[in-house]
Amino acid sequence: MQMLDTTSIVPLYKQLKDLLLSDIKEGRLKVNQRIPTELELSQQFQISRMTVRKALAELVDEGVLAKKQGKGTFVQEEKMTEDLSSPNSFTNLCRRNGKEPGGRTLKFTLQEARERDRRVLQLGDTEQVIRVERVRTADNVPVMLENLYFPGHLKNILTENLNDVSLYQILREKYGLHSGNSVMEISVCEATPEEASVLEIKTGKPCLLMEEIVYDQYNKPLHRTKSVLRGDKFKYISPRMNVNPMK
Amino acid sequence: MQMLDTTSIVPLYKQLKDLLLSDIKEGRLKVNQRIPTELELSQQFQISRMTVRKALAELVDEGVLAKKQGKGTFVQEEKMTEDLSSPNSFTNLCRRNGKEPGGRTLKFTLQEARERDRRVLQLGDTEQVIRVERVRTADNVPVMLENLYFPGHLKNILTENLNDVSLYQILREKYGLHSGNSVMEISVCEATPEEASVLEIKTGKPCLLMEEIVYDQYNKPLHRTKSVLRGDKFKYISPRMNVNPMK
Repeated sequence: MQMLDTTSIVPLYKQLKDLLLSDIKEGRLKVNQRIPTELELSQQFQISRMTVRKALAELVDEGVLAKKQGKGTFVQEEKMTEDLSSPNSFTNLCRRNGKEPGGRTLKFTLQEARERDRRVLQLGDTEQVIRVERVRTADNVPVMLENLYFPGHLKNILTENLNDVSLYQILREKYGLHSGNSVMEISVCEATPEEASVLEIKTGKPCLLMEEIVYDQYNKPLHRTKSVLRGDKFKYISPRMNVNPMK
Repeated sequence: MQMLDTTSIVPLYKQLKDLLLSDIKEGRLKVNQRIPTELELSQQFQISRMTVRKALAELVDEGVLAKKQGKGTFVQEEKMTEDLSSPNSFTNLCRRNGKEPGGRTLKFTLQEARERDRRVLQLGDTEQVIRVERVRTADNVPVMLENLYFPGHLKNILTENLNDVSLYQILREKYGLHSGNSVMEISVCEATPEEASVLEIKTGKPCLLMEEIVYDQYNKPLHRTKSVLRGDKFKYISPRMNVNPMK
């Protein structure tokens, strides 16, 4: 059993914190595993509960551990980071985070346009909408449920097998269209029973709701996207330049 | 009682949708109020349940209504929109969204620095940290719990009454420091009992967790912020320029 070094210049709480971090890093403590209680740790290392509390508080603050009321303190999974200032690509997002991207298409249909599709995609009066629903996986775990809506006149993309081919590649090759600017909204939602079932989480679990309108190189709407991302798997990061004084 | 016009060129589902929208806009249906069931609406307006379902599905998709499992369909409050591409200011955010900003300071202390503060704020070995905890309100409703951490050497800001004066104003006047660039992370969290109590929501309710490091005009760390925002009150919006092809 490892012990703390009471003769060291490094504070005891910091030694305990580093020990827990290396236990997590090296897999002795696993993601979603409950760690020993404050009392157990203080007895195990013969240090005060105050010292244990301080180490745990910092790890909770840093998102390494999470307290669940009445259940204990658990090891959190590190979230995948989506950089809002760089191009949007699930494949790259996974690779950057050391995960293997995957997925499957659940729906790929031409359907009646909703009022919102009509407005956002600037559809003609009778134009339909192409809906692509896919689940995206990282290391075979479902992490994102994605719904894309394209203007119906791009219906030649319907002939493709999306499990292997990039939608954007088809748009480039068949229509000469490239994605350009976009506007994105991020909010939280609670997973509906349907979403929860696909994402293999409990109904009501907090998720990120990402809604995006992507324009082509001529600044015409290319598609809108509504994605539900598992809240325990993702975070967004965004640099801001020259922030002005905040009241 | 209002009826739908079966002779109109406007589809019946669209008429019902517009009627519900104007009921919400004009306060006949209030935020968090349950709307009549599909069956009740179909009887009331003598239209098929299919038509009702379509109108409700669009309003749910647009975030105007929300279905709660086993409880019915409810009017959602419109979320306040924080624009990630513009300067960060709670006051402006509220004003832009037609709400009166307010708040109060819960803590304003010089305390021992955590390891993370030391690293992120580049503190000296024995330097403390100034912690400001405030709750922010919009129209007197608590919507955000904010924790700011400043390097301890800026301790002259501690003499001020923060309920009325801008922290940034004090930093400018006492130290000649302005906020510059920043890096921000957005993720979801479940409100802890303490957060829930301040924000007047139930423990475990989904919230946005916003963590930011703000630099001064010399690119030195000015403060870090960790805020918990009510998930039912906020959304973030971010424009992306020149998105590259997405696999």
